[in-house]
Parts: sequence; structure tokens; C-alpha cells
Amino acid sequence: MSNTYFSPDPAQQKIAADLYETVKDLPLICPHGHVDPRLFADPNYQFGSPVELLIIPDHYIFRMMYSQGISMEALGIPRQDGGAVEHDHRKIWQTICDHWYLMRGTPTYLWLRDELRDVFGIDAKMNSANAQAIYDAIEEKLKQPDFQPRRLFERFNIEVLATTDAATDTLAHHQAIRASGWAGRVIPTFRPDAVVNLDMLGWRQNITKLAEVSGIEVSNYQTYIHALEQRRAFFKSMGATATDHAAMTAYTEELSPGEARAIFHGALEGTATTTDAQRFTGHMLIEMARMSSEDGLVMQLHVGSFRNHNPLIMERFGRDMGADIPVSSEFTRSLKPLLDRFGNHPALKLVLFNLDETTYSRELAPLAGHYPILRLGPPWWFFDSLNGMRRYFDEVVETAGLYNTAGFNDDTRAYPSIPARHALWRRAAADWLAGMVVRDQIDTDDALEMIRAMAYDLAKTTYNL
Amino acid sequence: MSNTYFSPDPAQQKIAADLYETVKDLPLICPHGHVDPRLFADPNYQFGSPVELLIIPDHYIFRMMYSQGISMEALGIPRQDGGAVEHDHRKIWQTICDHWYLMRGTPTYLWLRDELRDVFGIDAKMNSANAQAIYDAIEEKLKQPDFQPRRLFERFNIEVLATTDAATDTLAHHQAIRASGWAGRVIPTFRPDAVVNLDMLGWRQNITKLAEVSGIEVSNYQTYIHALEQRRAFFKSMGATATDHAAMTAYTEELSPGEARAIFHGALEGTATTTDAQRFTGHMLIEMARMSSEDGLVMQLHVGSFRNHNPLIMERFGRDMGADIPVSSEFTRSLKPLLDRFGNHPALKLVLFNLDETTYSRELAPLAGHYPILRLGPPWWFFDSLNGMRRYFDEVVETAGLYNTAGFNDDTRAYPSIPARHALWRRAAADWLAGMVVRDQIDTDDALEMIRAMAYDLAKTTYNL
Amino acid sequence: MSNTYFSPDPAQQKIAADLYETVKDLPLICPHGHVDPRLFADPNYQFGSPVELLIIPDHYIFRMMYSQGISMEALGIPRQDGGAVEHDHRKIWQTICDHWYLMRGTPTYLWLRDELRDVFGIDAKMNSANAQAIYDAIEEKLKQPDFQPRRLFERFNIEVLATTDAATDTLAHHQAIRASGWAGRVIPTFRPDAVVNLDMLGWRQNITKLAEVSGIEVSNYQTYIHALEQRRAFFKSMGATATDHAAMTAYTEELSPGEARAIFHGALEGTATTTDAQRFTGHMLIEMARMSSEDGLVMQLHVGSFRNHNPLIMERFGRDMGADIPVSSEFTRSLKPLLDRFGNHPALKLVLFNLDETTYSRELAPLAGHYPILRLGPPWWFFDSLNGMRRYFDEVVETAGLYNTAGFNDDTRAYPSIPARHALWRRAAADWLAGMVVRDQIDTDDALEMIRAMAYDLAKTTYNL
Repeated sequence: MSNTYFSPDPAQQKIAADLYETVKDLPLICPHGHVDPRLFADPNYQFGSPVELLIIPDHYIFRMMYSQGISMEALGIPRQDGGAVEHDHRKIWQTICDHWYLMRGTPTYLWLRDELRDVFGIDAKMNSANAQAIYDAIEEKLKQPDFQPRRLFERFNIEVLATTDAATDTLAHHQAIRASGWAGRVIPTFRPDAVVNLDMLGWRQNITKLAEVSGIEVSNYQTYIHALEQRRAFFKSMGATATDHAAMTAYTEELSPGEARAIFHGALEGTATTTDAQRFTGHMLIEMARMSSEDGLVMQLHVGSFRNHNPLIMERFGRDMGADIPVSSEFTRSLKPLLDRFGNHPALKLVLFNLDETTYSRELAPLAGHYPILRLGPPWWFFDSLNGMRRYFDEVVETAGLYNTAGFNDDTRAYPSIPARHALWRRAAADWLAGMVVRDQIDTDDALEMIRAMAYDLAKTTYNL
Repeated sequence: MSNTYFSPDPAQQKIAADLYETVKDLPLICPHGHVDPRLFADPNYQFGSPVELLIIPDHYIFRMMYSQGISMEALGIPRQDGGAVEHDHRKIWQTICDHWYLMRGTPTYLWLRDELRDVFGIDAKMNSANAQAIYDAIEEKLKQPDFQPRRLFERFNIEVLATTDAATDTLAHHQAIRASGWAGRVIPTFRPDAVVNLDMLGWRQNITKLAEVSGIEVSNYQTYIHALEQRRAFFKSMGATATDHAAMTAYTEELSPGEARAIFHGALEGTATTTDAQRFTGHMLIEMARMSSEDGLVMQLHVGSFRNHNPLIMERFGRDMGADIPVSSEFTRSLKPLLDRFGNHPALKLVLFNLDETTYSRELAPLAGHYPILRLGPPWWFFDSLNGMRRYFDEVVETAGLYNTAGFNDDTRAYPSIPARHALWRRAAADWLAGMVVRDQIDTDDALEMIRAMAYDLAKTTYNL
Repeated sequence: MSNTYFSPDPAQQKIAADLYETVKDLPLICPHGHVDPRLFADPNYQFGSPVELLIIPDHYIFRMMYSQGISMEALGIPRQDGGAVEHDHRKIWQTICDHWYLMRGTPTYLWLRDELRDVFGIDAKMNSANAQAIYDAIEEKLKQPDFQPRRLFERFNIEVLATTDAATDTLAHHQAIRASGWAGRVIPTFRPDAVVNLDMLGWRQNITKLAEVSGIEVSNYQTYIHALEQRRAFFKSMGATATDHAAMTAYTEELSPGEARAIFHGALEGTATTTDAQRFTGHMLIEMARMSSEDGLVMQLHVGSFRNHNPLIMERFGRDMGADIPVSSEFTRSLKPLLDRFGNHPALKLVLFNLDETTYSRELAPLAGHYPILRLGPPWWFFDSLNGMRRYFDEVVETAGLYNTAGFNDDTRAYPSIPARHALWRRAAADWLAGMVVRDQIDTDDALEMIRAMAYDLAKTTYNL
């Protein structure tokens, strides 16, 4: 619909529509996300069933179903113990459609509606009655070559898509993509959490793997740093322009060389404490800023998620199962040690993401409106939504300015939902700008430049793409 | 007025009005509130003066007057020391009307306006000039049999009304209601704070009372638990479907049996510390969840009020005198011990209420959008208002979904204001849904089902009514 | 434009315009700000260049430029070490105009636009092309007698303007203003932070200065208190009606006389700790409340800024250079010791300002809606903006009522921007009230009285002006 997501006021709506018209066909910049590079490595990759494509990997959907008493097993989510789960994908799809009304009012409801309509040509509302017909229609499309990932990449008009990859990844799929001669630009992102956060499950094995892939024996802090630098250089050679870091808090602290060595040694020995782990993560964020200031990789920091909050779900289904819950965040004091050292650096960019909206106007916007290295990422995760965007625009821009924001990224593993997500952002941005035009806060010329920045330029320049 | 509380946009307004039309005559579900059951025990109960009915029990009103320099005594609020207070109710009413402009912009201003108009047939604005005339008009109505509580219950179209009652209450009024054969459904709610929170004034005497009413000698932790279970069973036999718990924080902790016994023993001896009290409250919340998982009573938790903040007012007038001030809340970590044990329970429901709106989008919606036992109560207390509801809808539903919310409850002791409060909620809900329809986020069929859920079904199903 | 800053809905816009019309010509009450009294001491004071007037003193502008990589030196900000900075004001102006688009969406963008148009008669958008022409136009105006501060004071229709002055200030400029016989009411405000906060740079020298100006030898806590009381009396004799206090937190604590004496003694000796300083500040806030309860000066408290967050900027350029970053605030517990002692005082007024918007609805509105001494200051600093005001109105008034707010103050050192700032507030207020009228929350009579209160009366009565 031409006025989808716009305010109902006719004057504002008209301006929003005009602004959106100027950017709706711009290529998509996807500087941060979780699409599997495997999709593009094989030129003839084909998606599985509608359920494999749309339901099983989407924790936004199955968490909501679970919250209303539908078991994860009934949705086909694999158990860690190999226990029985529903295998009939048509039955799973029916269950989803029977309960699809639970998603009303959520962004997922909109993304999937728009995706079915615009990608699969299905203009029907998911419900009990039409569940099987929609399944048929999707299944039929997925068999067509036009629905192979590379074809969709072109159809979606994606200019660049960044994946997120462990520091120990060999980037074999990215190598295959490059080797294939395909013109699509799919680049990796360096994410070292699993070798940086000492208390992460499997850290010791990850260090072994780090040594293997880097070819550097990681026996102490110094060689560990060398190995990380080696990996960064490799990622950069493979097209990466950014790194990504996740932490429960924004705590940073510069350890003395002796402290860093001692804690790292303790971790290798298995004697590091929880406090050691927190301090080491805080130290490594500064160390990663140091490396970024040298190699030019844009640094991303995602803060505020209490991961795997539900032990039953963690034990039975593993990580990333919809049980990550935000906690409150603090930046002004926490980030100061990093900013004291690198906040004024001319060559560094640090993009901040957060799950505590109270920090937008109180801390993040004031910080970004002063420190040259800071950019604010778009509303993340639960806040990648119409209301989330409106609050973000309203709470950030007055203080940070628009040009200290980082544009949009879709942050998704749900590849076919990418156009719907960018369209939502672009429409929300157009409507927000139109609201400022009708209130005489900016004029139409301002708005035209701002909508282009929001839809395209800011993401591209922030990530050096 | 037909468009009261709706957005001014004509397109949205029209849809809101249409939606509201479909629910405005549905019966009222009142699953949580503080109406005195005495009102219904006596078939011929008559209200006192307009001031006794509308002013003296309403801390929303006298706190605002007090904040602007009008003494509590001038408003007839009884002093604990029996000191002189204004007894001329006409004079008090005049004082209120002289200063009624202070209430502009508050929900109380709207509730009382709508109540005067719709219940008492008085379509005039309270002010100095018409104070006495309005007093006359209310007084005249209150003498009529049509304004007796039972008659109003029927006129208000209340399907069920739950009161809130101490664990040690004999429920004599509820027994009288049942014995009278009247068809109105008035049910109790089990609220054990006064015997659970060790640091509450009079806890020791309350334990004595608990022993008396339960017939169980409460000499240790084990018999204490038995006595509580006995009371719950009694409340349930009297129609209760829910319990209610208040705490300054959402802190939960499972004590070992030995710890629980020792702290309880210390409390009986008068040696429990503040920390003991906090830990015991946190433990008992889990224990109450355990009992609810067994007896099926829906558990409600109200968090975040610093009670009796003003010592002068507490000393002179006692509790609940408008001097309760919210504090910031935390749920993700605090509630984890309870959720670890019962979060996935198939038969338990826990409804959360809170006075820190920042937790809506950051913690409560993500938690409720995952854990099967959780439902989010409507905006509470200061946030039971037009803006409070709009923020709640906008910040909760995108992540929690609508169906993890608990509908509305009026939470009031101001009995004749109940229809005005429900109408405000229903209108706010209709307008919010209309806003999503005009933005093409949901269609009209969705909206029709959602408005009914918000106005009626969700409250009924959440509380098993 | 007649509908600037109003909502686009025609019905709401019409009401907003009608309301605004009734207050737009009311005199300006400026009870808190940072205009230099020197401007009025010399009847023929002339402003310097456009850059001296508009850019160099405005940290809102240069912080944004700095955040985007433009050096402070390039904007002519003087270095502490006397190092070279750009001295060509035309070149600085060009740089500003080249990057003025960075300010889009900020309140500064609006203030300067409206100021250029309404004060200087320049109806053009600052950009690269017209930078020099605008510079010429401003420069030409500044030479005219009509643009001298006293003439502007009359043209701006300022009824009273309060400056903010150190406790140790001799108020020489205020004395000169009085001696000159000029009718403009410019009054001082007593701000003792520099002699109260023990950890402030230069505290010891400030105590020496305090002794000098008060004529009281400050050798111990008792004489220190006497000296402060002497200064307050002097400020009051010079027309002051208020004091102002800044603190990172709202922490208050009443020290015993012995503790206060000991900490003060330690500070004189240079042995006070950080904790001593925090406790002493918390104690002195209560002591200042005590003094205000006696001398009737209205007390203002500004809470929540982490000052001079960027050590590089602090070292190179000094204080107040755009590197102050908010932190989260707490009032319910922090302010309790002060409120326990003075919260019910009939003669005291305490106006609260804060940079953590989450406290509006959670703590500040409930506190102000109960305690007689409390008033809530308008949205401060980063929140003195269209969105900041809308959030403030929506989050404060339902609970605190309008009449526990303190109206508007511009809090600015940018003298010629004062009318633009008041106009923004008055328009935002009119639009907010119009929104309540169209939703039938208030009627037009209510709105007419409320807009006058917001535009004029509340500021005047709160500050006893």
C-alpha cells in the first residue's frame, strides 16, 4: 500500500510518500547481519521447506509461540539430546498459522506479510484456513531458480551484504564466493567474542582453534594478540571493513601489561574468575579499539543482552533460542576508559548498539554529539520496529544530530525478509522527516538530503563501503 | 462526547469510534481492585456525603491539594492523634472545587468529570461558583435506592469484581454477600504481604492473627507455610482466583530449608535483620509461585513503590496517604531465581505490575514474550492514564505481543469511578488500534478481535474468570 | 510561519494557533540563565563579530562540529596553552556554514534560524553559498545602536532576567546596572557550587575569596556558614530571588555538627577524600534548604551531568566545552533526607532540574505531586527542545499536575536567542494543550488559563518575581 507505515495526517502523508519515492529504489546497504554465507557459496543453493526457511531459524517467531504454551518441539526446533520433535513441516506450518494472530502488532507480523507479498507474490493473511495453500505457494516458488539466493540478491538490489563470522572462521564460504567470479559483494565481519570472553563456553577450545587458523602458537597474552591481529588482517584481505563485539555491559578498563598477561595465563590454566573475565573483556574492547585505529576496521559494539536466560531452554535447545533478555545499560562511566584513550582519534569509528532505550537521550546521543569516533547504530533487535525507530529518531537526533547515526542495518539471518526490513526503515524515516517538515523544523530540501542519508549514505560511509 | 480520548485525525477517529462501538457495552471485568466488600454485604448500604464518597478516600486528589499547600486537615483527612480536622463537608467540597483546576491534565480530572456526568447526571465543571450546587445534586442522588452499591453494580454491568483482602481476613463480608443470595459476583483476592514481609509494622501480631483464623499454631516455618496454604484454600473456596503480592523490588531468592527456618525463627524472636526480611520476601515469592502452581490461583506481583515516603504524613495520618513514591525496578536478574524454577510451568500464571516504565520495553516485554507463565498487567497507579496507556501499548506489544498482556483492571477503591476508568481504557485501546489500522500495520478484522480481547477477553482468561 | 512547531492536524493546529495568539506578546520571564551581566552594565556595550556573538560561546554548536571531525581550533575556540587557533572570523563563519547541515533536527538549528529572521531580519538558510552575505548582514546590524543589549532587552520585551553568579562575585556589573538608573530588571542568582563542592578545582582559593568578599574570616565550618549567609543576604539585597546548585547526583545527607566541622577542617587542610566531598555536598544541600527556608530565596537544583568527560578537551580548552555527559539519576531515596527535614515546609520552594528523562514519570512527578516545597523545572539542556518538551508535558503533568511545574526558563548565555527559545516553548505548550482539547481532556477555558500559566505566570510565581 502506498501509505503503509505513514502517519494518517494527509499533509504529512503526502510529504512522506514523496520523500520515500526518492529512495525506495536505492540499492540496499547491509553492513551488519547474520545471513549464512553458505547461501552464496554454491551458485545453485536451494532453500529447504517453508518451515526450514521461515520458522525454524526465527527466534522472534518461536519465542512468541512458546510464551503462549506451544512447545518448541511442536515447531520442529531440534533438541540437543536428539529427542523427538515434530518433523512434518506441513503440520508445523499449520500450527504457526493457527496461532499467527499472536504476532499481531509485532514487526515480525509486518516483515512476513510484506515478504510473502513482495518476494513470493502471496497477498493473503496467514490463518488456519489458508495455511496449506500458502505453504503450497511458497514451496512452489522455492523450487524455481529465481528464488536461489544469488538471484534474490540481484532482485533485492543489494549493493553489499556483510556477514558476521567468528575470529576462528576460515571464511571458506567467502573464499568460494570470490573464487566463483560472481559479482555480488558479500563480505565478512570479524567477531572475536568467542576468543575474547574468557567465561564463554568453549573458550579454551576456541583458543586452540585460533592458534590453528592463524598459524601462531597461542601460549601467552602476547601471542594471543598477534594471532588476533593476524586474523584481522586476513578478514580485511577478504573484504571485511568492520569488526563486531558483544558484551553484557559497556564496561571498559585498561589493564596493565602485567595484569593482562596474568589473567590470560590464568584463563589458559582454567583458574580465571568471573571478575577476571569481566575485566579482560573490558580491556580487550580497548585493545580492539587500538587495533581498529591502526587497521581501519570499523568497530561495532552490541551491549545489553543477558544471554540464555532460561536454563531449561538452554539445556534442551542450546543458544539463541529466544531466551535472551535485555538488562539496563550504562555508557557515560563505562566507556570512559576507552574514550579517554581513543575518543578523539581521527581514524577510528566505533558504532554503538544497545537494548536499553533510556540511554538514547541520556547518554548515547550526548556522547555521539561530542566524540569524533562515535556513531550510533540503528535501533537493535526488539527495537527494530516502527515504534522503536520513531523513539530512536525522536530521542537521538536532537542531541546527536543525524550525521552521528549509522543509517540502517537489518541484522537478520532471515535473508528473504531483508527488503521488507529496509522498506520499513525507509518508510519510517520518510514519515519522521515529513513530521518535521509539517512542523516547519526542516524544509523540503533538508528532508530530501536527510532521507537519502538515512536510506543509503550513512550506512555506506559509516562502514567505509 | 463521541470522540473523547481519540486522536484528532478524522480517518483514525472514525476507525476508533467504530471499534469502540463494538465493545462499549460489554460487561466489565474487574479482576483487581480495592473496593470495600462491605458495600455489597448490606443490601441497603448507603454512601455517606459526597466528600466521604469522593474525596476523603481518594489519595490521588488530596495529595495534589497537599502539594499546593492545602492542609490534609482542611480536607477532612482524619488524624491518627485525633486532632481537629475540618468536619463541615460542604466547606471541604468548596475547598476542593476552589482548587479543582489543580487537577487539570490528570486522569482524576477525567474520571470525576465522566463519573459526575454518567453516574450522577451532572454535566457541569467543578469550580468555585457551582460547588454547592454540585454538592446538592450528588447528595440528592446518593439518597436514592438506585445509588446503592448493588444497584450500581448492575447498572455498571459488572460481570465480576475482585476485592483485595489480607491473608488473615475472615472474609465475613464476602460470606454475607454469598449468604444473601444476591447474584452479583464479588470475589476475594488473597494478599499475604502483611504476614510475609517481616519488616512490616505489626508483622508479629499478624502472625498471631494468622494462627487464629487458620486454626494452625504458627510456631515455626513449617506451620507458617501450612497456615498460608490453609488460607489460600479458604480464599479459593470463597471464589478467589488470584493472589496479590507487593514488594519494593522484584528480588527473588530460593532459601535453603534451613535458612528459611532460621530467618522465620529469628523474626518470631524479633531478631530478623533488614537483609533477612528482603531475602525472606524474595524466598516467599518463589514459595507463593510454588503454591500457585499447585492450587491454580493466578499470582499477581506489584513492584516498585517506596511506601510512606514522608514521615510527617505517616506519623500524622498513617499509611496510603499519597506519599508513596516509585523507585527504579529491575526484573531480568531479580526474577531469574523464580523463573528458573517455575518459568516454564504449564499451570502457573504470574501477572507483573510495575511503576518504572523503562522496564516495559527493556525487560518486561522481552520476558513476557518468552516465558509461558508471564503476563503483563495494565499500566499501574500513576500510569493508569491516557498517556500511560499509550506508552504501554507502544512499548510492550511489539515485543510481548498483545496476548501476553492481561487486559485492564481498574485497581480502584473509588467504586463509582469504575465505568469511567474502563471507558478510558477501552477508548485508548480503540484509538491505539485505529492508529495501527491507518498505518496499515493490522487490518480491520485484526483490530476487531484485538479490541474485544483488550476490553474483555484478556482480563477474563488471564484471571480464569 | 504561523503554524511552526504545531501538529499537522488542522483541528489541533487551529486551536494551538488561537492559544498561542493569546500569549505570544506577553513579556518574557527569564528566571534562570547565563547571560553575562556585563552586557547591561555599559549602556553602550557593543557585540563583537558574528562569530564572537554566535559561535565561540555556544558549545551546542562547536560540540557537534567537533563530533564530525572539525577541530576546535578551526572554530576559534581559545586554547588554554595559548596555542594557535583560527583568528579569521569570516573563515570560521564559512566553516560553520559549510557544515551547518550537521545541525539539522537539533534545537540549535531552529533557534538560530528564528533568531536570524526575527532579530536580525535575515530570512535565509545558512549554507556555503550565502555564508559571507549572512556574515555581512549580521555584522552590519551589530554596529547599530538598536542591537545594543539594553535596546534588545526592551525590544525582546523582557520583564526580568536573572543571571547566575558565583557566591564570591562582587556583583559589580549588577551594581553598575542599578547605579545607571536603567529600568531593565536584571537580577543575580546565588550559585555557591565553587565554595561548596570540596573537590572542585580551586576550592581552597575560592574559600579565600569568600572570606575577602564577605569580610568574614573563614577558618572553620561555623564561619564558613556565616560567610555564606552573609553572601546570600548581599545577593538578596541586590535583587536575587533564587539560588542555584549543581551536583552530579541528588544525594543528600545530614551530617552531625561534628562531622561537618571535621570534613570542612580536612578540606582546608587538603586532606578531604572523595567520599568526604560527596557527603559534604549532600549535607550542604540540606543546609542551603535550611537557609532558603529562612531567607526565602527559591532553591534550584540541577542534577545529573558528568562534567568535563573528555580529558583532552579539558586540558586543551578548559571547562564547559561541550564534553559534559549526563548520567542516570535517582531522587526517591537520594532526596529523602532533605525532604524529611524540609519537604513540608510552608515557606520553601525547591525547583528540580535533571538530565535523566526516566525520572520524570517515575520519581519527579510523584514527588512534586505530593511535597509542598517541590516544583519541576522545565526540560533542561539537551531536552530544551521540541521533543524534550513534548515528552516532559506528557510524562510529568498527569501525575504532578501543571501547577507543580515551574514554567519555562531559557538557561542560555546566547542572549539574542532568548525570544526564539521562549517562542518555541510557548508554541510547544500551545500545541500540547490543543492536543488535550481535541481529545476532550480539557476544554478551551482550561486551555486558555493553562497556556497563560505556562507562558508567563508559573515562572513568575515560582521565582517570586
